[in-house]
Parts: sequence; structure tokens; C-alpha cells
Amino acid sequence: MSYKFYPDWYNNPPPARSYRSIFKWGSPSVFKHPNERLLKVIKDRLGMKDEDFKHKKNTGDETVKIDFPVKLNKIFLKKLEDIVGSENVLTDDYSRLKFAYGKTMLDLMRLRLKIAENIPDAVVSPRCKDEIKKIIELCDKNLVPITVYSGGSSVTRGVECPKGGISLNMQKYMKRILKINPVNQTVTVQPGISGPELEKALNNAQNLFSTKYNYTCGHFPQSFEYSTVGGWITTRGAGQNSTYYGKIENLVLSQEYLTPAGEIRTGEYPAHAMGPDLNQVMIGSEGVFGILVSATLKIFRLIPHSTRRFSFIFKSWQNAIDATREIMQAQFGFPSIFRLSDPEETEIALRMYGADFRIIQTFLRVKGYKLGESCLLIGTCDGDDDFTKLVSGKISEIASDYKAMSLSGLVAKAWEKSRFKDPYMRDDFLDFGIIVDTLECSACWDRIEHVWKRVTETCKKYPRTICMAHISHFYPQGANLYFTFFTKEDGIKEYLQIQNDMIGAIRQSGASLSHHHGIGKMIAPWFEGAVGKEHLDVLKALKKHFDPNNIMNPGGTLALDIPETEKK
Amino acid sequence: MSYKFYPDWYNNPPPARSYRSIFKWGSPSVFKHPNERLLKVIKDRLGMKDEDFKHKKNTGDETVKIDFPVKLNKIFLKKLEDIVGSENVLTDDYSRLKFAYGKTMLDLMRLRLKIAENIPDAVVSPRCKDEIKKIIELCDKNLVPITVYSGGSSVTRGVECPKGGISLNMQKYMKRILKINPVNQTVTVQPGISGPELEKALNNAQNLFSTKYNYTCGHFPQSFEYSTVGGWITTRGAGQNSTYYGKIENLVLSQEYLTPAGEIRTGEYPAHAMGPDLNQVMIGSEGVFGILVSATLKIFRLIPHSTRRFSFIFKSWQNAIDATREIMQAQFGFPSIFRLSDPEETEIALRMYGADFRIIQTFLRVKGYKLGESCLLIGTCDGDDDFTKLVSGKISEIASDYKAMSLSGLVAKAWEKSRFKDPYMRDDFLDFGIIVDTLECSACWDRIEHVWKRVTETCKKYPRTICMAHISHFYPQGANLYFTFFTKEDGIKEYLQIQNDMIGAIRQSGASLSHHHGIGKMIAPWFEGAVGKEHLDVLKALKKHFDPNNIMNPGGTLALDIPETEKK
Repeated sequence: MSYKFYPDWYNNPPPARSYRSIFKWGSPSVFKHPNERLLKVIKDRLGMKDEDFKHKKNTGDETVKIDFPVKLNKIFLKKLEDIVGSENVLTDDYSRLKFAYGKTMLDLMRLRLKIAENIPDAVVSPRCKDEIKKIIELCDKNLVPITVYSGGSSVTRGVECPKGGISLNMQKYMKRILKINPVNQTVTVQPGISGPELEKALNNAQNLFSTKYNYTCGHFPQSFEYSTVGGWITTRGAGQNSTYYGKIENLVLSQEYLTPAGEIRTGEYPAHAMGPDLNQVMIGSEGVFGILVSATLKIFRLIPHSTRRFSFIFKSWQNAIDATREIMQAQFGFPSIFRLSDPEETEIALRMYGADFRIIQTFLRVKGYKLGESCLLIGTCDGDDDFTKLVSGKISEIASDYKAMSLSGLVAKAWEKSRFKDPYMRDDFLDFGIIVDTLECSACWDRIEHVWKRVTETCKKYPRTICMAHISHFYPQGANLYFTFFTKEDGIKEYLQIQNDMIGAIRQSGASLSHHHGIGKMIAPWFEGAVGKEHLDVLKALKKHFDPNNIMNPGGTLALDIPETEKK
Repeated sequence: MSYKFYPDWYNNPPPARSYRSIFKWGSPSVFKHPNERLLKVIKDRLGMKDEDFKHKKNTGDETVKIDFPVKLNKIFLKKLEDIVGSENVLTDDYSRLKFAYGKTMLDLMRLRLKIAENIPDAVVSPRCKDEIKKIIELCDKNLVPITVYSGGSSVTRGVECPKGGISLNMQKYMKRILKINPVNQTVTVQPGISGPELEKALNNAQNLFSTKYNYTCGHFPQSFEYSTVGGWITTRGAGQNSTYYGKIENLVLSQEYLTPAGEIRTGEYPAHAMGPDLNQVMIGSEGVFGILVSATLKIFRLIPHSTRRFSFIFKSWQNAIDATREIMQAQFGFPSIFRLSDPEETEIALRMYGADFRIIQTFLRVKGYKLGESCLLIGTCDGDDDFTKLVSGKISEIASDYKAMSLSGLVAKAWEKSRFKDPYMRDDFLDFGIIVDTLECSACWDRIEHVWKRVTETCKKYPRTICMAHISHFYPQGANLYFTFFTKEDGIKEYLQIQNDMIGAIRQSGASLSHHHGIGKMIAPWFEGAVGKEHLDVLKALKKHFDPNNIMNPGGTLALDIPETEKK
């Protein structure tokens, strides 16, 4: 008689004002636990036993208590209250810690260990642009740092406040849709609006705004549910459908920022030849120049009935990369979701999503596709119905030319269904001392395999780790690479060692340091080495112009003010 | 018996070292004269008679002679010669004037009137990047201005040297193809390479570089034959096929600039989230930050047999705009060349290209399309054969929905054939005292008609003018507007009055000041008014960083150093 063990996953909303309520991913009452098959792989690879899943540790159920006195004086706080109302200036322990951290693995680890550092002195929720203007003036005069917090889903230590000051909470009020323009196909929003709020409104535009069509924003990062437009733009993010819709820098038509040096409002033109593009100076500026207060985004007609799904299995990584490159260079249009898993991720994905893994395994073996070598490609096509027919047909043809086997659209559909839910599992794993973290980058085609090999090998040098990768954003000239690694939690220092080595490998392999997560404070030590001193000097000149007193998100972001000793 | 008069068009290569040899468009021995039908329209509208076409004036056949002593001293010139070789430092009258002007209408007028102003003291032709670096160091130390000259086809007073100094001629040596990368589909070139040189090499890549495919650069401005990659990039230009291939800012993958503050080399990534995009700071910088020394551009597989052509006639401007907007927003892919003429341009085009205009006129009238109201749309589709079939089919469907009538692909073919030749006619017209000039801008869809109306009305306020327009670069969010106006030459001041009024109308109507010509010194007076002081201040901060001594293209470009009194 076989005995089956299931871990007692944490399955309740975290206690109010607890550490866990801060680090838990997503909605308090939503969970996605690792399934049995995934758990088996993890246990096998990390050398863990059922015993290791019997006692959760550092679950963070305790009430937050920190020992950092507020450094802002009462007169200053009163002035803040005069601007935004006293209910919108919070200095309690819980709020200060909550707004100090995002969803970086280091954040989760620190919260579980009750390490509070780099916290703001106050959390301020402005109600309108004018209040933000006044806050900037007040803070600039008093040299008080301002760090913007919007969705709080940063995985680059983007919202920490190493210099204290205020955390500006944009998600409370600054989240309105200001205008929808069906002629231009644009929407103008405040930065604190979340992905689902925006998408819901666009999907219902016919009812809400009496437009002829319903629309979509086309931007769906994995953090979609807890990300905001402000975060998308200021980190230079990408959605999972970016191969068709474009990255956020392709979706922003115009923007409005408040900076200590004044207001920047870019023109609303479809394209221009009016000198350097200020939109692209501000996009990705990660809060160091100023505060985004509104943005006009391109939107797309919603044509859900046209979406077509596909999945293929390729015999090798090389084969699959060649095929996807061909797809991107053949000039028939691009797919929307387009996601190629390396052999490791393919195996794990098939175990996770395949209802009966043994049948799949046998089937693949019979057909000559070996696990550990085969690669899964899934995707969708969006757009006009005839267009998606053409694109999906062409993709099938090319996949077939490269000896891939179709697994029908069902695998893509299964993945889509859970696409925003995977981050929930991080908490489960960490409850039992397993780190699941990600790093990502981009490179041109001729470097993709080199980067992939170097980074995965760097991770796998460490005993008992899993490192899997996928490509999920494709271009005619190259693609991104997204690495997910599992390792036994063995302390912050040890974790950072692996992470550092992997970022170092990304840097040395000639890839970009990030394709869509941004730099934040986490990647900043490698930034100057990657872009060069002259490049960083340009950003410093811009910083000096916009924010001569360094009050905007100070303390390391984009390597503008990190000490020489921290540079890698 | 009817008597037919034909003007004695200038039909010889201009005399060596003459004014005409500087201002003549294109190849010295190539001409395109206005045909009889076009001439008839012009005469009718401008109130001119055969008599007016009997005597050419200000043809500029005289040998160039200017009265501006070289202000650079011999020691300095010797140092330049030491860097580039004495044969590459020219201080003769002819060279200095030749490199002072581009192809702005004002340039042609000044050259015909033998007005030399804003000329460089020397023309220097660097042979490599290292020499450019030395030149910058030398000039920066001695506060000698450097203005870059590449194709010389600027129509915004882009290459003038109001502060003297040296004109850096990039077209003599700095025009090599450095690398073609078929895996990434990129080509790396020096900036002085001309459009045709680059395109020829790419079209023959299989032979020249043993690649699997031949390629195209996809960038064909009207000035193609005499434009260079450096000019495309530094002015933020667009080719006539940009609706499919993208503007130059979408085609540049990475670049290398030399500036007084050092070398800027952007990373070769397909996309990134590494802070502000330095590529987009340098593209369109019009020589004020530094000198472009190499660029890596995206290239596309050449699939000429797939190209499909179409032309349609719409009953009204409004109808045609609505149809093209629908085409751009319906998500089935974009056409390549896509060009919609307003009623005025349509009439003139039909007269010019229609072999028997009266038959066309009758045919259209019978079908209910009135001249003076109807609008011509022509275009091509590029890409994979099935893709162009789909896109051209969809365009036909939508055109038909909007009551357009197909004129087959022949009109598009006729236009394509002469697409780079129209600028030749400017010289013929000006020989007989007729100015033909252009201005262009862009706007979102909801402003297109307003901009068009305001600008054309502004021009037509002047008696005896023709103002016609087309849209030739389309986006889901809007389009460009390209105005061509004819007027009797009546002196520089009078010409500038019309031009000023039209630029003012563009500015006041809320359009961008340029979609692809750039700002140069010509549009600069309106720049601050259009973008705002805060925007200009950002550019000034960048300028101060890159070029603290203001030696790079000083004297007005991008409004960085124009006097308050000149601002409009």
C-alpha cells in the first residue's frame, strides 16, 4: 500500500498587520500550491525528503514591530498632513515596513526574518497631481527623499528607501482613467491604476464609454494582477504578449512627470522628428528623475474570438531557437504570447501541467522526443481573424520544417489559465526553506545560446539547484532569456552569492542586464560595468538637472549614487 | 493650328565649381523636367504665361567666389592636416560654400543670389574614427565649432555653420559597411554611406557576404539617393515605406558617438529595461551632442516577388482618412508604402501621371468621383507572400467599404518609378521664379483634419499659391501630413513670410513640428514654444554635459542657443 504525503501548505489569509501579510503574493485569500508532480521534481533535485516538508519555518505570522524612530519632525509631518490630509500620512510600524519592500526574493527573506531596513519614515498618499507637486516642493526644500510605491511588485528592490524619507503611495488615489479616445485608440490614466482595473475598463469600453469597440491594453506581465501602469512605465516593463503588442516603451504615447526641476509633459504625437525622444528618457527612469502623474497609452481593439493557440515540442533547444528565429524573421506578422522553454523547464512544465506525465513521457519517447533535450513552445496569435489564421498557420509550417510535433492548443490554454498564478507558489516553497527566484536578460540571436549556457551552468555549479529557462519575448534581432532557479534556503548571504554569480554571468556573457524587470537597487552594482562610465555619466547629468538635491528615489537605483566599493 | 510652347529647361550638367553645381539636386547629369500637364496647372494657378517661361533667372552658372577670410590660423590648420592629411583639409571658396548649405529652399535661393553666409572656415574629411576623436579634442581645446556634413540633403538648414569652424565631411571616407550579421539580421555601417550604396550591398548580400538571403534596409526617404545613414539617424528621419518597416528610430539597434565628453556606445540588444534609452537620446540629436561614427541597423529579407501594389480613389478627404485609419487599427498588418493625397494633390497627380487626363476626368465624373474632392490612395505591401496577399486584400475590402474605386496597381507603380525624381523639378521651377517647397508634421487622428485645414488655408491666404498635401506615414494612433506649396518667387523675405506662417499654423494646430525632416536651424525658433521650457531645459542639460564648450553644431540647432528675440 503506497503512502502519499502532502505538505500542509499555508492556506489561510495571513494575520492582519503581520509580516506575512506584507510578503504574501497577491490576494490574501488566494493560493496556488505546488502540485504533487512538481513537488516530486523539486524534492528529487534538491535532495529533500517528506520530512523536510513537515515543519514550516519563518512564516512571518507575527505582528510587525520595528525599531526605527521616525526621523521626520512634527512640523514637517504637519506640513505633509496639510497637503494630503492627516488620514493620508501614515507613520505606524506596519505601514512603514509594508511600503519599504516589493516582491524581490530578498524582501521575502528579510520579512520572514523580521529584518527591517531601508524603510520610509512616512507613507504619504497624494490625492491629485497638485498635491504631488506640493510634496515635491516641500521635500526638496527640506531634503527629504521621496520614493514612489505603486503596485509594490518590484523584483529589483525598486521601492526600498535606504535614505528614509517618504514613500509615496500611488495606489490609493492616483488610479483613475482620465480619458479614453476611440479615434486615436488611446487611454489616458493615472499611474496607480492596476493592470486588471485598466483592462476591465477597456474590455467594457462599449458599455462604459459608449465606444464602437471594446479594447485591450495588450500588456500582461506575470505580475499583472498586482502591477500598475506606473510600474510598467518607470521600469520599462514588458507583458507576456509583447511579441505582438510591444514592450511598454512602444505603448506609451505621451506622459506627464513632476520633477524638482518642473513639469515634463511629452507631446501626443504618433511619431516625430523633434530631437531626442524625451519619452524614452523618462520611461525606465525608475523614479530617479521625477514622478509619473499621467500617461497616454496606445490601446488595441479586443478581438477575443480571433485568438488562436498552439503548442509544439522540438527535439532540441538549438532546433527550437532556430525555428523561432525563422518565425520572427520571415515577415508574416508576429505571434502574441510566444514562449519557448528550455529542456529543464520543458520537463518540469510537462510534469506540472501534464495530467498523466507517464503517458506523455511514453508518447514522446515513442515519437523520438527525449525528455531533457526536448523543448516546449507555446503561444497565441492575436489580431484580426484572418491575420491570426495566417500567423498560426505559418508558425505550424515552420515548426514542422524544424521537426517539431504539435501538441495542439490545449497546453497553451492550460498555461494561460495559470499564467498569473505561479508567483503564489513562492510562499509555499519558502515556508519549507526553498528559494524560487528569477533573473532575466536579453541578447541578440547570435549570443542567446551562449548566454543561456553560461547562466544556467553558473547556477548549476551550486549543488542541489534547479535552473530552468524560457524565452518569452521575441524580436527579429534577438530575444529575452528568463531564468528560474530553485535552491535550498541557507541564509541571505548564501542566497545572494548564487544570485550575484548569475547576474555576473549575465553581464559577462554580453546580455543586457534586464529585458523587463528593470535595474532597481538589486542590479545596480553591475550597471556601470555593463553600460560604461560615459553612459552612466549621461544619466548622472540628467539626474543633476532633474533632481539636483538627490531627493528622488536616492540610494542606489540605476547606480546613480552607489559607492565605488559596491560596484561589481 | 495650335502652337505649343515648351520652356527651354536647364538640361546640362552645371559648370564646374559654379553655384549651380552646389544647389542642383542629385546627379549633375540627371534631370526630371515638369511635364506639360503639370506646367499647365502651375501656370493656371500662379497666373503665369508662356512669357514667364522664356527667360531663366539666377541660374547660378557663375564660378563661386566668396569674400570671407578663413578665420582659423595656420597653426591650427596645420594640426588638422597632421591628423587627416593635407589633401583632406580644404579652405577654398568653393568647398567652403558647398559644405555650408543643404537643400533647404532658402539655401537654393541664397546660392542663386550668391549670398554666402554661415560658411565653415575649412572642410575636413576624416578617414577613421580615431581621426574624428583627435579632431574633436583639437577643436574643443581651441573652441572651434564642428558641424557634420554627410549627405547634404538637409531641408532644415541642418548643415549651416553660423559660427564658422569646420565642416566635417563624412561622405568621403566614413562610408564603409563594417559588418553584416545574417543571424541577427543587422548591418553595421559608418554614417557617411549613402542609401543606394547600402541598399545595393544588402540587395546583393548573397554574392557579397555569402548570406542565405538578400536583404533590404527598408528605409527609403525621398532624398534616398543623396541621403546617408548618418543623416537618417541624426535627424530622426523616415523612409517612404516606414508604415511597414518603421521610422529610423525603430531601425537602429546600437550606435557609437564621439562627443567632447567621451565615447557613447549603446548596447546591442533587441530590447532592454536598463533605464532610459540612450539610443533615443542620440537619435535626432542633429549633431549637437556628438558625432555618429557607426550604427548597427536592423535589416529585412528582400522578398521583391511578394510586393503587391494598389491604388484607390475615394470620394472625399474625410472618407479616405476614415478608411486609412480603419486600415491602421484593424490589426491585420500594415502596408509598406501608403500614401494618401488630398484633393489638390490628387488632381495634380492625376494630371502629372495620367497619360490622358481628360479620359480619366470623364471616367471619374461618370463614376461620381469629383475632381477637387476625390483623394488618391496608393501603396504597396511588403513581406511574406501570403502576408502581402492578406494585407492588400484587407485594404481592398476596407477601401470598398468606404466607397473607394480601385485604379489597379499601375498608378502606384508609376509613382514608385518616379519616387526619388520629383526633387529634380525644384531647380526647373526656380529657374523661372517658382518656389516649390515642403513642410511636414504629424498628429494624432483626431487632429489630422484640423491641422490639414489650418495649414493649407494659411498658405492659400496668399494669392497665387498652390498648397497640396499627402499623408505618407501611418500609425494606429495618427499620421504625418506633408505639405507641398508652390508660389511665385518674390524675394527671400517674402518667401520666409509664407513659410513662417505655415510653420506657425502647424505649431498652433497642435501638430508636431516635424515627423521626419528634423528641426535644424529652420524650425528651431518654434521649438521651445512647441515642447515647453522644461523640455528644452533637459536638452540644454544634455548639451552642457556632452559639449560644455558648445563646439558641436552651434548656432541655433534644436533651439539650444538661439537668442530670445528669434524665438517664435
